[in-house]
Amino acid sequence: MHFASDNTAGVAPQIMAALEAANAGNVPSYGADALTEAVTVRLREIFEAPQAAVYLVATGTVANALSCAMLCAPWETVFCHRTAHIEEDECGAPEFFIGGGKLTLVDGPHAKMDPAALRRAIAHTGRGGIHNLQRGMVSITNATEAGTVYSVAEVTALAAIARDFGLPVHMDGARFANALVATGASPAEMTWKAGVDVLSFGGTKNGCMGVEAVILFDPARARDFELRRKRGGHLFSKHRFLAAQMLAYLAGGLWLELAGHANAMAARLSEGIAALPGASLVHPTEANAVFAAVPRAAHRRAQAAGAAYYLWPFDQSLDGPGEEPLAARLVCSWATREEEIDEFLSLLR
Amino acid sequence: MHFASDNTAGVAPQIMAALEAANAGNVPSYGADALTEAVTVRLREIFEAPQAAVYLVATGTVANALSCAMLCAPWETVFCHRTAHIEEDECGAPEFFIGGGKLTLVDGPHAKMDPAALRRAIAHTGRGGIHNLQRGMVSITNATEAGTVYSVAEVTALAAIARDFGLPVHMDGARFANALVATGASPAEMTWKAGVDVLSFGGTKNGCMGVEAVILFDPARARDFELRRKRGGHLFSKHRFLAAQMLAYLAGGLWLELAGHANAMAARLSEGIAALPGASLVHPTEANAVFAAVPRAAHRRAQAAGAAYYLWPFDQSLDGPGEEPLAARLVCSWATREEEIDEFLSLLR
Amino acid sequence: MHFASDNTAGVAPQIMAALEAANAGNVPSYGADALTEAVTVRLREIFEAPQAAVYLVATGTVANALSCAMLCAPWETVFCHRTAHIEEDECGAPEFFIGGGKLTLVDGPHAKMDPAALRRAIAHTGRGGIHNLQRGMVSITNATEAGTVYSVAEVTALAAIARDFGLPVHMDGARFANALVATGASPAEMTWKAGVDVLSFGGTKNGCMGVEAVILFDPARARDFELRRKRGGHLFSKHRFLAAQMLAYLAGGLWLELAGHANAMAARLSEGIAALPGASLVHPTEANAVFAAVPRAAHRRAQAAGAAYYLWPFDQSLDGPGEEPLAARLVCSWATREEEIDEFLSLLR
Amino acid sequence: MHFASDNTAGVAPQIMAALEAANAGNVPSYGADALTEAVTVRLREIFEAPQAAVYLVATGTVANALSCAMLCAPWETVFCHRTAHIEEDECGAPEFFIGGGKLTLVDGPHAKMDPAALRRAIAHTGRGGIHNLQRGMVSITNATEAGTVYSVAEVTALAAIARDFGLPVHMDGARFANALVATGASPAEMTWKAGVDVLSFGGTKNGCMGVEAVILFDPARARDFELRRKRGGHLFSKHRFLAAQMLAYLAGGLWLELAGHANAMAARLSEGIAALPGASLVHPTEANAVFAAVPRAAHRRAQAAGAAYYLWPFDQSLDGPGEEPLAARLVCSWATREEEIDEFLSLLR
Repeated sequence: MHFASDNTAGVAPQIMAALEAANAGNVPSYGADALTEAVTVRLREIFEAPQAAVYLVATGTVANALSCAMLCAPWETVFCHRTAHIEEDECGAPEFFIGGGKLTLVDGPHAKMDPAALRRAIAHTGRGGIHNLQRGMVSITNATEAGTVYSVAEVTALAAIARDFGLPVHMDGARFANALVATGASPAEMTWKAGVDVLSFGGTKNGCMGVEAVILFDPARARDFELRRKRGGHLFSKHRFLAAQMLAYLAGGLWLELAGHANAMAARLSEGIAALPGASLVHPTEANAVFAAVPRAAHRRAQAAGAAYYLWPFDQSLDGPGEEPLAARLVCSWATREEEIDEFLSLLR
Repeated sequence: MHFASDNTAGVAPQIMAALEAANAGNVPSYGADALTEAVTVRLREIFEAPQAAVYLVATGTVANALSCAMLCAPWETVFCHRTAHIEEDECGAPEFFIGGGKLTLVDGPHAKMDPAALRRAIAHTGRGGIHNLQRGMVSITNATEAGTVYSVAEVTALAAIARDFGLPVHMDGARFANALVATGASPAEMTWKAGVDVLSFGGTKNGCMGVEAVILFDPARARDFELRRKRGGHLFSKHRFLAAQMLAYLAGGLWLELAGHANAMAARLSEGIAALPGASLVHPTEANAVFAAVPRAAHRRAQAAGAAYYLWPFDQSLDGPGEEPLAARLVCSWATREEEIDEFLSLLR
Repeated sequence: MHFASDNTAGVAPQIMAALEAANAGNVPSYGADALTEAVTVRLREIFEAPQAAVYLVATGTVANALSCAMLCAPWETVFCHRTAHIEEDECGAPEFFIGGGKLTLVDGPHAKMDPAALRRAIAHTGRGGIHNLQRGMVSITNATEAGTVYSVAEVTALAAIARDFGLPVHMDGARFANALVATGASPAEMTWKAGVDVLSFGGTKNGCMGVEAVILFDPARARDFELRRKRGGHLFSKHRFLAAQMLAYLAGGLWLELAGHANAMAARLSEGIAALPGASLVHPTEANAVFAAVPRAAHRRAQAAGAAYYLWPFDQSLDGPGEEPLAARLVCSWATREEEIDEFLSLLR
Repeated sequence: MHFASDNTAGVAPQIMAALEAANAGNVPSYGADALTEAVTVRLREIFEAPQAAVYLVATGTVANALSCAMLCAPWETVFCHRTAHIEEDECGAPEFFIGGGKLTLVDGPHAKMDPAALRRAIAHTGRGGIHNLQRGMVSITNATEAGTVYSVAEVTALAAIARDFGLPVHMDGARFANALVATGASPAEMTWKAGVDVLSFGGTKNGCMGVEAVILFDPARARDFELRRKRGGHLFSKHRFLAAQMLAYLAGGLWLELAGHANAMAARLSEGIAALPGASLVHPTEANAVFAAVPRAAHRRAQAAGAAYYLWPFDQSLDGPGEEPLAARLVCSWATREEEIDEFLSLLR
């Protein structure tokens, strides 16, 4: 019963097979190989973006940090949700790559920025001229850290606000596939057609070993990006093995299939929990993560049986008196099995 | 005939098999897995360093950059050879991670720092007090960028100079295994026993997919290192796949076996070239790379036959008049075959 | 009627005279002069801190930024009030000097951190281990940006919370003299005796031309500070002219006299406004700034007569319908005259 | 007998008087005052550059560091002479402000870059594509650190090489006035007409208290510069006092008069030394500094009599055996008196 995170799962068999296959012979290093070129071709097709520049990195943190560094100056601020991964889980990587930047935190229910709050935050920023940080960019996480999803209309609305102020838009798509499956939108609709300039296109959390693509819909600053990647120590010499993962991930819609499975498992888990006496959802379940409050006794039974997941926020504790329900985060992945969920639900009952 | 670099080769079969094997089931992420712990245990044994802290990253550039950032302050300078990888091939990654540092270049034949030149450079640095960059650290590349190797005695001598000035010592061991095989020294003799504080222990160039270990013989600043790695976007979520590579690389001395093969292939190539009329070695061949001047006609025959390698320095050209020999860099790897070498030599004749 | 800021005033005559006097002959540069040494001696006496290290810079922004950079690592966060100068008015200077740090904003009435809120903020930080920014330091602004003052007891309470977490404490004392005069505390009581490790001791806003002293009560990291100052371009060659200002500022308690005058002028202004029909104070007037809501008609009369001050927040406007009062910030300085205040009050009536 | 540096001298009386005069009344802060506007107008006239943007800072180090940060990216390198102030005397300030940049050192006699060496250095840089630092900018110091001067023709030749590679050109003019006087060139001829894009226009070393103007002949990136200055803690609140110095410095050609005096004094000193038995010039004396080798006995007599100057390089010592001459740096300033020189020369004889 593995619900701690989608990154505790391994690599999808098709992707592991692709790594094997890519291992034949000598191949030019640093991305000058045929597989890398094929990734660019394929992602341009999938995103209907024939001009897009594509770069592969191995972690989601650096995909986001490099994107922010490219899109805003050190004296500019990134507008994002208070619970965004770039704010909460990257140990300041964006600020490091930006060169001393800042994140301005925007509120909104269920980890989604409220458009009015975003507009207020941007309008308020830089009012003191050069004495203040300046307006830099907007970063939207989709799917969110709360397992919710922005619709195309919602992304479009946020991006329109950014445009009103002349700001570029980044999407943290560490779980982009989960968001697409949840909304039924096309890759293009969810990104550049909605006003997104740069996408961190996640692979690792959804069945890859360690690869993310950064897609620059406007290639104008591609060279800068490439230099920042190298300088950050993120250019792989045996680059073919990043490319092989991504190609297999995209082949035949595997990426959407894996995300569809994870979302379905989360839906099954969510419905099961919602039906439990004394349990309730903290956030609507729209992607592959369930946030729910469950009676402490149920937690104790599940944990005694070895179920792996985090209380959320995870600085809580099951100890001490009282029986009020405690919230937990339960994440499903491409590898989650129905049996795990049913066994877990039976423990909670 | 692949001599462009040791990183055009693929992954050794034992290491690929280990990745397969590591793919079973769910495993804690971010390095909290059993394989990662086993890597630390194994490297401590191999280096006779029970206290050492060990961190895995995916590229040699970041292994070096993080090591430098940990060992010197932004206002301190790194003493290294003029042709060191950190100076010539990392697009300023050390300066970026250090936060605006500097490299002070030391000369010496065959890419090895001359001890007297190192002492002069250090003594000269900071003579103007706070107006100057301060003395920071010494970085030694072994095996060097010229295919030569520092003996234990030579490393000890350079480290002793650093000690005279109270400076820590880093070793860029992207090709550490090749240096060990060449010298017959033990891992401990070549590092901490000789005065090395931090080692970038390379795996990628010697048969891994993408993994390097940074070994801190003094673990005092291990926590800082960990935070710098995370902040640099270099902490892998599916960390088991870095660990699996490294474990297989170390198992049964595979790392030394692979390096031994690469060195032997380079020796064969070197001897063959040295015997050619009009050819000569530019640097002694001590590890897995051959630097040799070869008649242009020989280059033309080899290249026409599809041999892959770089003229060195590689901004030279075969075009134009004259027949004087041109220097080339020819790198052998764990995957180089005798037949490649013999075929190549026959083309040069 | 000049209430826009205390930095629109000029230089106190005693300080200008000291600059004249310091201009005789040749003097060693970069702080090796007798006046600079005398400043250190004098500030150590005034602060009863015989070991303190003292450095002079020309702006408050860099005094704060260098202090933060010395006290916290790039991956650590600075806890400060949401309206602190380092957050709102320095264009990211602390983050720049820290090397990509972060400020964690703490709330509390009248620009003073609420102790419980500070404790919660610190406790919450770093709960995710290396995935989060780490706890760095606490920065207290006294007098605050709202013209209020922390008592010694209040500073002690906040510093005690920092100590509970092992964090150092910085005080932004751009208006330190105003705070001392308001509380009657001694310099030592308000700083190191209360748990403050580093003080930005302001001179510029209180009658100097441009000088602030950074006082390190623990001199252990003084050398680092000195190198950071030089590297930031903040070491003056003709350093005697920074020292001369500071010496004259301290001589015979001039600094307290000037602040006492500014505070008294603000009290007079505050009482006058509080007595106006339809007017009210936004913050208690405890130092040299008055924050008050005044009827729009009164604003119009004052501005028509050329009174200089900012509506606060200053992105408000007098235009448009409605007569509800608008808040303003009115700052008094060492140079403010009673007549200005009385004339201004008569306009508001 | 003060020859240690031109920054041991005080402030020219006309400039001190201007500070007095600027001290009347309340004035807008942060550069929104009339004097600051007048400085821009005046410098645009003097440089025949009606579009130029002008910013004042208090130190030469930051004038250079901000200029470099504006003109090159963190992954680009600055081409400058091996002895440039930005390389030798700024504790890495350029690298800090650039955000981890690099300086590529170019040789040439008497601290002047050899054009062929500059071209080779630029051509060699970046040959490895993204693996290397990229070509960034050229920085020319005039007058140089060796008391020599580039003619307009020499600056034009170096700038033309930069142009061939599309690189911008910065001039470190900490002693710009001395260079102009020495060459008789006009400010425009020595800068933008010769291909200089940004000038650090020095005042401090030539009679000001602490002010330098950065002149951007192309104002396109002026806003960025302003933000970098603020963020670096270099925007003065009582900015009128920077402006007042600069205005007085420019008024009636005072700046050229002061530099002319300093150059004349250096010429007198140089001629006197050249005529001494056993003495010789190390560099031609073209501006306000004399570099000469003098018999040790002469040094001993001069130092015994209290003459202040540095042996050069200054990590030399008078002690020990031998009587061979030792080199010294002797700097004259606006305040140097003929009597000082004659007295000094008489001691050397």
